[in-house]
Amino acid sequence: MGPLRVGLAGMGTVGQGVLDILERQAALVARRAGRPIVVTRVASRRRRDDVDIGAATFSLNPLELVAADDVDVVVELMGGTDTALDLIASAIAAGRPVVTANKAVMARHGNDLLATAQAGGVPVLFEASVAGAIPIIGSLRHGLAANAVTSVAGIINGTSNFILSAMTAGADFSAALAEAQRLGYAEADPTFDVEGIDAAHKLTILAALAFEMPFAFAAVHCEGITRITPEDLRSAARLGYAIKHLGIARQTPAGVELRVHPTLIPKEHMMAHVNGVMNAVLVRGDAAGDTLYCGPGAGSLPTASAVVADLIELARGGVPVHTRSEPVPAVLPIAACSSAYYLRIPSLDRPGVFARLATLLGEHAISIASVEQRGEEVHAVEGRAWVPVAIITDRVQEHVMDAALAALAALPDVVGAIVRMRVEEFTHD
Amino acid sequence: MGPLRVGLAGMGTVGQGVLDILERQAALVARRAGRPIVVTRVASRRRRDDVDIGAATFSLNPLELVAADDVDVVVELMGGTDTALDLIASAIAAGRPVVTANKAVMARHGNDLLATAQAGGVPVLFEASVAGAIPIIGSLRHGLAANAVTSVAGIINGTSNFILSAMTAGADFSAALAEAQRLGYAEADPTFDVEGIDAAHKLTILAALAFEMPFAFAAVHCEGITRITPEDLRSAARLGYAIKHLGIARQTPAGVELRVHPTLIPKEHMMAHVNGVMNAVLVRGDAAGDTLYCGPGAGSLPTASAVVADLIELARGGVPVHTRSEPVPAVLPIAACSSAYYLRIPSLDRPGVFARLATLLGEHAISIASVEQRGEEVHAVEGRAWVPVAIITDRVQEHVMDAALAALAALPDVVGAIVRMRVEEFTHD
Repeated sequence: MGPLRVGLAGMGTVGQGVLDILERQAALVARRAGRPIVVTRVASRRRRDDVDIGAATFSLNPLELVAADDVDVVVELMGGTDTALDLIASAIAAGRPVVTANKAVMARHGNDLLATAQAGGVPVLFEASVAGAIPIIGSLRHGLAANAVTSVAGIINGTSNFILSAMTAGADFSAALAEAQRLGYAEADPTFDVEGIDAAHKLTILAALAFEMPFAFAAVHCEGITRITPEDLRSAARLGYAIKHLGIARQTPAGVELRVHPTLIPKEHMMAHVNGVMNAVLVRGDAAGDTLYCGPGAGSLPTASAVVADLIELARGGVPVHTRSEPVPAVLPIAACSSAYYLRIPSLDRPGVFARLATLLGEHAISIASVEQRGEEVHAVEGRAWVPVAIITDRVQEHVMDAALAALAALPDVVGAIVRMRVEEFTHD
Repeated sequence: MGPLRVGLAGMGTVGQGVLDILERQAALVARRAGRPIVVTRVASRRRRDDVDIGAATFSLNPLELVAADDVDVVVELMGGTDTALDLIASAIAAGRPVVTANKAVMARHGNDLLATAQAGGVPVLFEASVAGAIPIIGSLRHGLAANAVTSVAGIINGTSNFILSAMTAGADFSAALAEAQRLGYAEADPTFDVEGIDAAHKLTILAALAFEMPFAFAAVHCEGITRITPEDLRSAARLGYAIKHLGIARQTPAGVELRVHPTLIPKEHMMAHVNGVMNAVLVRGDAAGDTLYCGPGAGSLPTASAVVADLIELARGGVPVHTRSEPVPAVLPIAACSSAYYLRIPSLDRPGVFARLATLLGEHAISIASVEQRGEEVHAVEGRAWVPVAIITDRVQEHVMDAALAALAALPDVVGAIVRMRVEEFTHD
């Protein structure tokens, strides 16, 4: 069998990482792949004379890779969803295998793309689209294949995790964001990261693989990290929790929960110790139990490591089958999802307040797991003293909590907006 | 393609777990494998009427599986190295694929077995032999295939980790061992676990895969956990470290380090938070950087999860190639390995002692990274007061430390046996 000939679209950091690995580790890659892997063509919408592409042919038109007779696989590393989608769809239509790191395209168009690919027997591999270097897609496809996966929970946006780690160390949101931007961890427009959209893309892909369900990006409940305050981080810490931005996918008898949001997790759990730009994914399987995968979620060589792993798999001849279980599970609206909650209630500093808060929660069948009332944190509003009361509840459905919060807000004791965040103890199914 | 027909040898907890998964998740397994996987024969050296083997034929002779005309793959879950080795070798010789969880057989006989298997094109899969449910072998073979792995460090013996976790919480070694035995985590004869032999088996397998080198069990430096005292755990904690039993394989320019021993690791590192019977493996790759894999290292269903994953891979038709890099690396003797060290030196409580200890270490070109001298821990020996001086050194070769320790022991200030443990900061290559 001859070499596997790669047409590479995109010369950004990941594309450069792929060129680097395939050149520097050519012998290792050939040994493991069973044959050499060589880049024959490189395409990019703008010329990059600073990047060494060896003997490869350069083109300004990525779509030329699809019909080129010296390309066996198209590697899409352009990002975005316009030309990238065109390129991937055209390659599949032409029967040409694809490797991509593009989470947005897979999350939003994966159903159509994979349906065409399956019909044509065309391999489409996308290990690099989730959690960079961590082989989480491979682990779901292969190592955990004997398991019915019941839940996946991941720290899958390094920018958000970096910002939350910095805020836990004392920075406020805007200072932490500025530092992330200075270090190249956040874009000038950080919306995709800090509003949770990037994490929702990745969660969509994880759920599709873990639960053998369609890509359901539009159904993901998505909250970012922009409203988390240093006060909440400190209050959570005193109650024994870290705040992390999690993507959670969970099987329930009523349907699948798909949600991305800030989450309190117990300090003793390993997920609480994933800091900076590191990613981590916790998978609960019915046989394996909880297995956890951590590593760099982004960066040139870590992401390229995943791209080249896909190329090696392809060169070996393993065509992954994207299986689907029947019936297709319903995705629950957020109101029907269940969670424990953290509440931070600005309450008048007067006798009987906590009893009234607790009574009201009890009337909504919400149990209190723990409470922190800080006497020293007395504030004033319109001349009256108030204190934040922080409460961790047991697990309830979100619509129950919504109703309780509306009732709480109407209490004369409550003097400001209530903060509400979900809590994940990782103890139940 | 017809079903993959399994001949299962061994009806212990793992064998029962495999029967359970293949029966309960038959549809899921068939979907992912592309065809059904059915157990047609079960063999065990003693009859087990309490185990449901469905429609499978039972035999008291595992070797009958090799020639049976209704068996496509032999699954060896007997343990031990006598009949198990016979069975695996016979199956390979007969051209029959093998799946095994047997780390002792693979670590001690893997070179011969895989050489014969490669020559005959016979797949031999052993994901379950290391770290139970954690797909670490799959991750090394597939997800990290683009990497030159520079080091692997694992908490790969759950029994030792359980005992050390219990000791960190205050128990002494014998109480912790008794508790592990009561819970079924330790054998009546715990030698294999607490002396590090089981971990050395697993490290041998990890190194063979990570470095594409021969199985080199005989060359592994192996120390267990039996000499760790509660005093050392407390002293390490005060210096900012946890003590874990690690298997470490590291590439160096001079050769490969292969060593199993108690190790101080920084409390901030995620490996320090792997507690109880959990396993974890940290892999450093030249592209991926550090990736970490955690999960249950033993147990019926977790281990069976790995066995069935191998069966699914086999059913799909992927035959793993065991690659070898050239030249074969030398394994360094422990005297040539490099490490930072923790020293606990019982020293007379008198002026100038620490200066003399530090001077002597300096004469051996050993730098001190941190020190803890506890005034309150004054002991008495032969009527003279002494204190334990705890020191963390920078990295040196073991033979340098051996010479320094001999010189330290000869100092009049030193009044008892010096404790020496290796320290792993995970910061260097």
